[in-house]
Amino acid sequence: MLTMQDALARLTAYWTEQGCLTVQPMNTEVGAGTLNPATFLRVLGPEPWRVVYVEPSVRPDDSRYGENPNRLQTHTQLQVVLKPDPGHSQELYLGSLAALGIDVAAHDVRFVEDNWASPALGAWGLGWEVWLDGLEITQFTYFQQAGGRNLDPVSVEITYGIERILMALQEKTHFKDIEYGRGVSYGEVFGQNEYEMSRYYLDDADVDTNRQLLELYAAEAQRLIEAGLPVPAHTYVLKCSQAFNVLDARGAVSTADRAAEFGRMRRLAGEVAGLWVARREELGHPLGSAAPQAPARPVARPAERDGARSLVLEIGTEELPPAECRAALTYLEQQIKNGLDGTRLEHGEVRVFATPRRLIAVVADVAAGEPDAVRTVRGPKVAQAYTADGSPTPALAGFLRGQGATADAATEADFNGVRHVVLEKHEAGGAAADVLAPVLAKVVAGLRGAKNMRWSDPQLSYSRPIRWLVALWGDDIVPVAVGALAAGRQTRVLRTSATPRLEIASAETFMETIAVNGIVADPEDRGELIVTGAQDLVYPDGKIDVRGEAALIDQITYLVEAPTPLLGTFDEAYLELPDAVLTTVMRKHQRYLPVRDTDGALLPMFVTVANGPVDVELVRQGNEAVLRARYEDAAFFYRADRELPLDALRARLARLTFTDKLGSMADRAGRIAALAISLADGLALRSATLDRAAELVKFDLGSQLVTEMTSLAGVLARDYALHAGESRAVAQAVYEAELPRSAGDARPASLPGALLSLADRLDLVAGLAATVGLPTGSSDPFAVRRAVLGLLAVHRAHPALAPLSLTDALARAAELQPVPVSAATRAACGDFLAKRLEQSLVEEGHQVERVRAVLPHADRPSVAVNLLHQLGEVAGNPDFVAVAEAIQRCRRIVPDDVAAGYDPALLKEPAEVALHEALAGVRRPAEPDLFEFTGAVSRLAGPLSTFFDDVFVMADDPAVRAARLGLLATVRDLGAGLLDWTALR
Amino acid sequence: MLTMQDALARLTAYWTEQGCLTVQPMNTEVGAGTLNPATFLRVLGPEPWRVVYVEPSVRPDDSRYGENPNRLQTHTQLQVVLKPDPGHSQELYLGSLAALGIDVAAHDVRFVEDNWASPALGAWGLGWEVWLDGLEITQFTYFQQAGGRNLDPVSVEITYGIERILMALQEKTHFKDIEYGRGVSYGEVFGQNEYEMSRYYLDDADVDTNRQLLELYAAEAQRLIEAGLPVPAHTYVLKCSQAFNVLDARGAVSTADRAAEFGRMRRLAGEVAGLWVARREELGHPLGSAAPQAPARPVARPAERDGARSLVLEIGTEELPPAECRAALTYLEQQIKNGLDGTRLEHGEVRVFATPRRLIAVVADVAAGEPDAVRTVRGPKVAQAYTADGSPTPALAGFLRGQGATADAATEADFNGVRHVVLEKHEAGGAAADVLAPVLAKVVAGLRGAKNMRWSDPQLSYSRPIRWLVALWGDDIVPVAVGALAAGRQTRVLRTSATPRLEIASAETFMETIAVNGIVADPEDRGELIVTGAQDLVYPDGKIDVRGEAALIDQITYLVEAPTPLLGTFDEAYLELPDAVLTTVMRKHQRYLPVRDTDGALLPMFVTVANGPVDVELVRQGNEAVLRARYEDAAFFYRADRELPLDALRARLARLTFTDKLGSMADRAGRIAALAISLADGLALRSATLDRAAELVKFDLGSQLVTEMTSLAGVLARDYALHAGESRAVAQAVYEAELPRSAGDARPASLPGALLSLADRLDLVAGLAATVGLPTGSSDPFAVRRAVLGLLAVHRAHPALAPLSLTDALARAAELQPVPVSAATRAACGDFLAKRLEQSLVEEGHQVERVRAVLPHADRPSVAVNLLHQLGEVAGNPDFVAVAEAIQRCRRIVPDDVAAGYDPALLKEPAEVALHEALAGVRRPAEPDLFEFTGAVSRLAGPLSTFFDDVFVMADDPAVRAARLGLLATVRDLGAGLLDWTALR
Repeated sequence: MLTMQDALARLTAYWTEQGCLTVQPMNTEVGAGTLNPATFLRVLGPEPWRVVYVEPSVRPDDSRYGENPNRLQTHTQLQVVLKPDPGHSQELYLGSLAALGIDVAAHDVRFVEDNWASPALGAWGLGWEVWLDGLEITQFTYFQQAGGRNLDPVSVEITYGIERILMALQEKTHFKDIEYGRGVSYGEVFGQNEYEMSRYYLDDADVDTNRQLLELYAAEAQRLIEAGLPVPAHTYVLKCSQAFNVLDARGAVSTADRAAEFGRMRRLAGEVAGLWVARREELGHPLGSAAPQAPARPVARPAERDGARSLVLEIGTEELPPAECRAALTYLEQQIKNGLDGTRLEHGEVRVFATPRRLIAVVADVAAGEPDAVRTVRGPKVAQAYTADGSPTPALAGFLRGQGATADAATEADFNGVRHVVLEKHEAGGAAADVLAPVLAKVVAGLRGAKNMRWSDPQLSYSRPIRWLVALWGDDIVPVAVGALAAGRQTRVLRTSATPRLEIASAETFMETIAVNGIVADPEDRGELIVTGAQDLVYPDGKIDVRGEAALIDQITYLVEAPTPLLGTFDEAYLELPDAVLTTVMRKHQRYLPVRDTDGALLPMFVTVANGPVDVELVRQGNEAVLRARYEDAAFFYRADRELPLDALRARLARLTFTDKLGSMADRAGRIAALAISLADGLALRSATLDRAAELVKFDLGSQLVTEMTSLAGVLARDYALHAGESRAVAQAVYEAELPRSAGDARPASLPGALLSLADRLDLVAGLAATVGLPTGSSDPFAVRRAVLGLLAVHRAHPALAPLSLTDALARAAELQPVPVSAATRAACGDFLAKRLEQSLVEEGHQVERVRAVLPHADRPSVAVNLLHQLGEVAGNPDFVAVAEAIQRCRRIVPDDVAAGYDPALLKEPAEVALHEALAGVRRPAEPDLFEFTGAVSRLAGPLSTFFDDVFVMADDPAVRAARLGLLATVRDLGAGLLDWTALR
Repeated sequence: MLTMQDALARLTAYWTEQGCLTVQPMNTEVGAGTLNPATFLRVLGPEPWRVVYVEPSVRPDDSRYGENPNRLQTHTQLQVVLKPDPGHSQELYLGSLAALGIDVAAHDVRFVEDNWASPALGAWGLGWEVWLDGLEITQFTYFQQAGGRNLDPVSVEITYGIERILMALQEKTHFKDIEYGRGVSYGEVFGQNEYEMSRYYLDDADVDTNRQLLELYAAEAQRLIEAGLPVPAHTYVLKCSQAFNVLDARGAVSTADRAAEFGRMRRLAGEVAGLWVARREELGHPLGSAAPQAPARPVARPAERDGARSLVLEIGTEELPPAECRAALTYLEQQIKNGLDGTRLEHGEVRVFATPRRLIAVVADVAAGEPDAVRTVRGPKVAQAYTADGSPTPALAGFLRGQGATADAATEADFNGVRHVVLEKHEAGGAAADVLAPVLAKVVAGLRGAKNMRWSDPQLSYSRPIRWLVALWGDDIVPVAVGALAAGRQTRVLRTSATPRLEIASAETFMETIAVNGIVADPEDRGELIVTGAQDLVYPDGKIDVRGEAALIDQITYLVEAPTPLLGTFDEAYLELPDAVLTTVMRKHQRYLPVRDTDGALLPMFVTVANGPVDVELVRQGNEAVLRARYEDAAFFYRADRELPLDALRARLARLTFTDKLGSMADRAGRIAALAISLADGLALRSATLDRAAELVKFDLGSQLVTEMTSLAGVLARDYALHAGESRAVAQAVYEAELPRSAGDARPASLPGALLSLADRLDLVAGLAATVGLPTGSSDPFAVRRAVLGLLAVHRAHPALAPLSLTDALARAAELQPVPVSAATRAACGDFLAKRLEQSLVEEGHQVERVRAVLPHADRPSVAVNLLHQLGEVAGNPDFVAVAEAIQRCRRIVPDDVAAGYDPALLKEPAEVALHEALAGVRRPAEPDLFEFTGAVSRLAGPLSTFFDDVFVMADDPAVRAARLGLLATVRDLGAGLLDWTALR
């Protein structure tokens, strides 16, 4: 059996053979090999660098006392950095697996999109998790930025998770059972360390001490930056990170702390990186500079041909993310068509295909060349072309010179009835190869993803590296060259194929050739293979809910290019776990298709889709082991959680910090409860269900399973509450308190749920506004925007909540905060809420003017929305139009500072008396209602019109003038508070 | 060329093949691989453990900005632990060198005594530095204690200094030039790190921050100990150590701090160790328990023989320290003789020999067996042996039963004139093998060194492990068994021999056999070979000062068993360095013999003595490279130091802390200067030389070379002062201020030197007494005892200093301290000084009573010593005896509280009047002088005698009685202050 120490030695030796230096782990605690200066600093600047090292990586948060079979506070990474990107790092990587004795053809080795970012380091990259039969064994990243600096050249970072790999290779179900050295288990060597360090990180680390350490480290890092010493400064940044992680594991980091600390570390790391770059430059780059890749030269242009042939363009990539792959299809079709339209080549149908490793366009019947053409070039008007003596004017002479023609070649033609000098130019048609090459080059160069990266190519940038191009017209290579790539006829099929690279004879045989070699290029074909394969596998026991799993199936379709569905099973004991837990693990973590019986109940099986002709039994076993480990984890937590009374779970909230100024999560839950009940009292919606649900709200955040799978907050609250004997209504309300979790998510159906949901979000907004401020720009670490949108959505969803003013409710929430919330802050919250309402209503398709008109009711969104709908309906109503015009007219005439009210005795003119009398009969509706308002006010339209015709408002007598203005102000104010009339113009 | 990373990989692979686990370096900064829990914790308790790992070891104090070719703040250790001691670890180690491609037969590989202790860890062990051609490449230790706990089983710890080894193998003169990986130099990989971390440790580390870190770490360690978690506690102890080392490198650690911190770390490490042991026991020792070695069984006893043969006992050891080797010779001869005397074996001469690896006793003509003998056993007295009827009494019956005899065997014999029953017992003589076996076993088991260790033997304990025994009588093996060793006929010769193990045919051929195989067993022969060999090598250019280097030659004699003197040279440019620098390096660090010309001036050459038939050229080159590196270091510092004005060097003293409470070394030098001048003023000894020397005193502590080689303090002060143009007298005084450096060292010859020396020691004593207290027990970290002995020696050396009271001088020193020095402390200092004087005078051979009698003058040691000599001379003088008796008589009669003085008018009796009159003529000498005193007082002898005969002191009349007692008290007090008369009895 390959021991763990042998595995480390073999990988080290393998990468050393590939030219890597071997260095030692960092001698201060780090969370990952990336933090070692051999990565973090060395990826900066132009110097080439290849290194391999082991890095015991400390994640205090992963402490489990050594009890969890798969999670350790210190796990062993083997880190490889290849700088610059050598262009075939995936193949080198697969070679390293082979060096470990892994048969990469028998196993299902996959590169699954996983982008990496370390906010604390100002670092990010694009790449993959590498899956071995569903098990994530390696992180593979093209490093794009570090310390906030763009990296050029780009480094490839490969990080192996050694314990996982060894557990898989040695078929162990607990890390402690790994054979570390000959006859010595991992548990024997590291077990006590794992237990004790877990104790330290989870229970015994002194919070105050670690806080002080954090401050001291940060200050020392800053001093060293000022002293111009990036190396020791970096060490202290790492120490900051560790101290922070310890505090975090001890539950002593609030959301605010986290954001602030990340900000500080990012700033420090950025300054360290800047200093390092400067110092290396001063030192003259002792390791040299990586030479950029030379631009490619196209192949020689082919001989002249006749007849129409197919055109194929294959853009070979490293594994694209599914979404990018899908998006590229549209791009490719459009761009190929546009490109061809810009030529005079005749062609047939354009078809496009995509797999994770290739984008293909096939164009039928592309002519061998363009027809020759005659083009008419317009010159000056004839009237201005010749002098009196018939010789060319300077205008004509210039035109002819510009066209390289002589006057005798010029003829004349009409343009819009005006006669111009024209030249007829004969243009020879281009050969297909010549014409197609720039078109295809532009298509390749123009590829862009949602997130783009650079690799070693001097020009290209895309979602993942482009590694090869096939461009054939018939039998000929189209001489495309773009960046460092020249198109040829060599394609690549499955890496595990006997002949992973193939020559393509002609465009016409391309699709067949790759199909024969296992590549299912058409996503529809793959989807079909997946669905029918999966259904076949589970028939007759169960079925796949194809419609319900459509998103997942679509994703899988773009994860493989040679789908091989496999059936796996799991112990049905795990079915005791809630459906959401089981399916979240399957879908989100493993991309497995759940299998259900005819009643829709989950069966203890799953379908995974391997890529290519793997050893099915081997891959099945591997995937089953992965799922078992994940379910074992979840079951462990689930059972432990359910053994505790709800009170005990809720009591744990006291240990979770919400933010440093806003207290614990228990404090927050208390405030939510009090606020919900207070709101209910105000609305006469108090109920026993609400009271109990308020006592429990958020208790599941104290459970281990929610700590692990935060997306299940609420879902597990309902499950645990029901298990504990709470009523269905209470359980539902506690669940609904978390809704909506995102835009488009369900809103609480019950009123207790809705009240708790509102209270939750009001508390969040009030507290954070008073402490860290409302979000500005794109940064919103506390998701305050989402909370506000939730407030609006919940309010709108329940008519019973219409009387509730959210600004009043916010004021009540503010009173409950442990910090003072100033009037200015409350006002800012109101504005923020109004802005969000405006924005979402506009996004829903309403006219901006109307939305703005109803915004005075933003504090009661359902009222505002109701008015908005009424506005739409009354817009064409002549009464309303008349009323609106009247009110607007009054607004224009009467200065803003004139109050409503007047002395009727001063009104003498009949028109003004009539208006006064009409006014007396107007009664404003109790609640904002445009229909009622229009009905009530429309009687004023006539008298007003007469008034404006007959009465001169600005009378000489000041008293009369004042009375008339006061009369109009009274009309004006009839609409006050109902709409923002200024918005309607 | 073997790169450094290849070397690490090869060593790791080699030790893995020997069953070692591979683990990772510690992920917090450590000063040595020993601190890694894989050593520090794993050597504790009974569990077996074999491990190999790389440990980048951080020594902030060794920071040199990467400029020094041989010194790095982070050097790479490769650490191996073998637990239990496998019994052949040296051979395994040599195998590892071979794995690196080192031809251990061609090179001079030596195991040179080096004991290791880490006071901060409560850990120690015995072992060696391993030298490769004079270069220390490995530390090899049998770990005896860790965390203050005895280790059982004992672990072997092997620590390779990788950079040094690679520099030697790659023939590089600067560590930066080591080829780290293929085509990549060490400097390219680590140079910037080395520079920047040096900057941090020497210049930029914030002292206050690191002090705070130290406290936080220590408190966290303590908390974790209390929580019962040795693993994280250990981590924090390591962090303490690093913070301490940073402070130390920044010059921020005073002697007091150091002692206190070491004490704290030792205590913490001890508690960590205790906890670890307890936890492993609770866990049931997951790795099992190392089985103790079984006791050996002796070989079968040989057949009966006739005639006399030689006896040889060879005790084979791992390399013994020279002093132990020498001591063992005496032991061995004595014990063999005693042992043989306890037998009846006839034998000839006993000769003993010793080399580092063997102790040999050869006894000529040992008889084949003991002669038979008759032994008379005494029974009860005849008078008590028989009853009246002639039958045996119970007493006789019991005796006979005890001897297994019957009454008829009994005869009678006289003992001291009393007749006893006796039995004559015939005892058969034993065969040589039977008789010798227990004798030899006892000799082996009884071996003890000054420092002893345990290894894997269940019984034995010695200075280094005993690995084999040869015990032959003639052709026969003497069946000796002791501990796990059974004697045989197999000896071991040089490890690099073609046949490292040999069978010895007979005792008679033993010495020849090993001689033929290169072992020069007789130290005298080796000494001769070394001296003549060395002289031959240097003839005619120079010579070795055999007498001057006697101690070194003696040491070398016991460092090799096959001396191979080699001549090496060094660049004569290094001769610019002071003689003391050159010879200190040669003798102390390298055990090289300096070579001088006929005038005694050093020549640029040296003789080193290799062990065995090495490749002379290779070994010469290696040693020359080592010396060059050491001289290059020294020259670098020497030049740098001499470039600075003396003021600049002295100014650096401000950066050296003396102790936290007593200020910097500059403060201390200032106090010494002020005190010396004040003392000189008091004695009218002020001079321009003293004034200037006082300004300079201790300035060389600010130099780099003294920092490196502290034993040269003073010596370099003189050198630098002369170089800077100071007068010879000033330079000498600054040098002498440091004298005496140890017991028996020279004392200052000049008065300015003597005054500065006194002032130095007075300042030390006063300051430390007031802050950390005077030393008690065996602990004296600040060498206060040595300082006091120096005070006494200097005072005694200069008659001109006789008037100086050291207690007064201490009081003046006390006034200069930055802390208050209480009267009680000053008194304690006086007592301490008196105790030291008493002790040293007694050790010099003076009678205790007389020493005590002069102790009232302890504050002026030269006065006390003078009196002591006078006491010896006057002891037989009848006048002095009479005076002494008279004074003693007065003391006995007069109560202590009666003061001297009386009213002469009350004296009536003639005898008392006569005494009164005689007294009036007595004048005490101005200075304590027994001769003068005796002369002056002797006239009282007669009158006193008459007084006692004639006068009844205790007269009835109280007034008369008082007058008489006063008269006698006056006589009594004549001796007061001169001697402590009570001491003389």
